[in-house]
Formats: sequence, C-alpha cells, structure tokens
Amino acid sequence: MLQFYYAPHTCSLASHIALEEAGLAYEPIRLSFAAEDQRKADYLRINPKARVPALVTPRGVLTETPALLLYIAQSNPKAGIAPLDDPFALAEVQAFNSYLCSTVHVAHAHRMRGYRWADDPAAHKAMQAKVPQSVGDAFALVENGMLRGPWVMGDAYSICDMYLFTLAQWLEADGVDLSRLPKVIAHRSRMAQRPVVKKAIAEELNQ
Amino acid sequence: MLQFYYAPHTCSLASHIALEEAGLAYEPIRLSFAAEDQRKADYLRINPKARVPALVTPRGVLTETPALLLYIAQSNPKAGIAPLDDPFALAEVQAFNSYLCSTVHVAHAHRMRGYRWADDPAAHKAMQAKVPQSVGDAFALVENGMLRGPWVMGDAYSICDMYLFTLAQWLEADGVDLSRLPKVIAHRSRMAQRPVVKKAIAEELNQ
Repeated sequence: MLQFYYAPHTCSLASHIALEEAGLAYEPIRLSFAAEDQRKADYLRINPKARVPALVTPRGVLTETPALLLYIAQSNPKAGIAPLDDPFALAEVQAFNSYLCSTVHVAHAHRMRGYRWADDPAAHKAMQAKVPQSVGDAFALVENGMLRGPWVMGDAYSICDMYLFTLAQWLEADGVDLSRLPKVIAHRSRMAQRPVVKKAIAEELNQ
Repeated sequence: MLQFYYAPHTCSLASHIALEEAGLAYEPIRLSFAAEDQRKADYLRINPKARVPALVTPRGVLTETPALLLYIAQSNPKAGIAPLDDPFALAEVQAFNSYLCSTVHVAHAHRMRGYRWADDPAAHKAMQAKVPQSVGDAFALVENGMLRGPWVMGDAYSICDMYLFTLAQWLEADGVDLSRLPKVIAHRSRMAQRPVVKKAIAEELNQ
C-alpha cells in the first residue's frame, strides 16, 4: 500500500485530495511542522529535502506536488482527473501546476520562510511586506485567464483544481485583497463542497 | 510549425535542446531581456506571464519548462527522452524537473530578481548575499543522490539532463563553490559535448 506523508496546512493537501479522488488505497502519515518532524533523521531518509508531500510506493519514494498529482492520476486512469491521452491538454495541466509550484507557492513562502533566501531579519520583514501584492498578482493571472471555469481546465475537473484549491487556502493569511479574485474564491467554495475534499481536510485536522 | 520563444542565458535553453533532441520542426524566435521584449504588448498576448519559454502550437500556447519538456518528449516518443510508458519513472522525471523549477531556479533568481519578492534595495542585497549558499545547497541535493550518473536518471538520457545542464550554466555567476559539485560539473561537461547542445547554444548566441 502507498504511504502518504503530509503536514496540515501545507501544499500536501492537494495530493491528499487526489488520492481520495482516485480512490487509491493509502496510509496517511502526519508530520508536525511545529515539532519539526520533517527535519528528523527518520523522515530525511524518506525525503532528504525535508519537505512534504512524500509518497512511498512499492518502487520508491516520490516527491513534489506536480509529480505526485500526475502519478496519482496515472495510477487510476478511470478516475479521469487528468487528460492522460491528450499530450497538449496534459501539457496545459502540467503548465498550470508548474506555475502554482514555482510562482504562486514561492510568492507565498516569502511570508514565513524568508530564511531560505536571506539571513537578515530586516530582509524577512521586507519580504513579508510584499506578500499581499506578490501573491495577489500571481493569483490575478489565474483569475484573469488561466482559470477557465467552472474548473481550471473548463468543464473537465482535474488535478489542477485540487492544487489551486490548496494554495487558495492561504489567501486571507497572506493579506491578499479577495475582491480582486471573485472567480478564484467561487472555485474555492465549489471545491470545499466536494465530499472527498471534506474527507481529506477532516483527516488532516483530526486530533 | 511550432514557434519557440526564448531568450539567451535563460532557462529556455532546456526546451531549445529538447526540441533539437526530439528532431521537431520549429521556428526559434529570440527575445532580448535587455530590451525588455518580454514585457511588450505583442509578447504579453502570447504569454501574459512575461517569461520565457513559450511554445506556440497549432492548438495554443504552452509555457513553463517542465510542461514544455514533457510535451516535446510526447511529440516524438521515438526520440526516447522521457519514460512515457512507465508512470513511476515518469513521475521521477517530473519530480526532478519540478525541484529544478521551484527550488533551484528560484534560489538563483534571488540574485537578479529580488524585486519580485521585496521592494527594499537592502533586502535585495541580503538576498544576493545568500545566493552562493542557497543555490549551492540546492545543487548539493542533486550532487548527493538525485543525479544517479552518468545521466540524471541513470543510464537513460532524458529531459532532466537538458534542464539540469541549463541551470548549471549559472553556477559560477552565482558564486557557488564548484568543489562541492564534481558530479554536476562532470555532467555539465558531458552535456556540452553533445552536437545538438552545441547547435542550440550557437543558435541562441548567434548575432
């Protein structure tokens, strides 16, 4: 069986939802970022990057959200959560998810993880001050074109929706002006109503 | 025919090499970052993100290096530059490329593009000061496990090699201690000897 390492309130929620949508059998294993579980020796043997998510499969460990989402979609093609038989449509999916990981998530990370890119506490404050704008601008491109509606890729629900929903959890804490993003917020509400999304979130937050 | 928008000395070189390796017919179109071509209206209609690469296909525009690399590999499966029939191996490829775009390239970007994440010039200097360490640490994970040798995925040459080679162009300018990275440097030399790599670079630098 798959083992899925995640931490609450992180991007691992996207893969968690995908596992549920694909109906795969998996064992969820929670890490506490507050306890710095991700930096402990046991976990570093699984993922030397000290990040989540990580998926332990019979053939080895997989990391990085865009890769996990594609792997989960391919593990159960019948779930229909990625256009596996259409290279152009699949490239559009990968392009969207790549933008989320390399631009949207990275902009967000400057609020809490500035130590990755500078040592000076004053620089961390300068980074934090820009997060409402940089995250807002990154989401504005999603709002104004990339999110086709009702789902990211139009009528076809996909792994892009799970990832966008996950990063949109952080908008309020990032101080983004939500009035700029009516489509993104409506999409978030639509996602939140799906039973598997509720199930994944409940599992992550259950004490 | 495909139209390929690139800029010299950027990550678009990875897709440029892939187009050559796959033997696809394409028209290369050079942008000058010095002239800020990527922010001009004509290009923003193609890619509103104001970034390279962008690939104009008969069905629409694709962006983001990991997505382009997979699309190019799928456009000519006979080229054998991605394990298209093995979901686990393909996920490993996507995980590697996702790490390059979201961690390695992002660490590098703090040397020249600090304005994306802070407005204070002092913060930009603090970011620049950390680049030798943050880029070096990101490459150290590649050196110590992810790069299997002789190619990233072992014996199989793939789209990962083109992307790693491209980002490794910047190590000296980023001030990284190359003595930490003998495998990465040997890989870079091995890649530089490939005729299609020489051809792509010559095309980009030709006046």
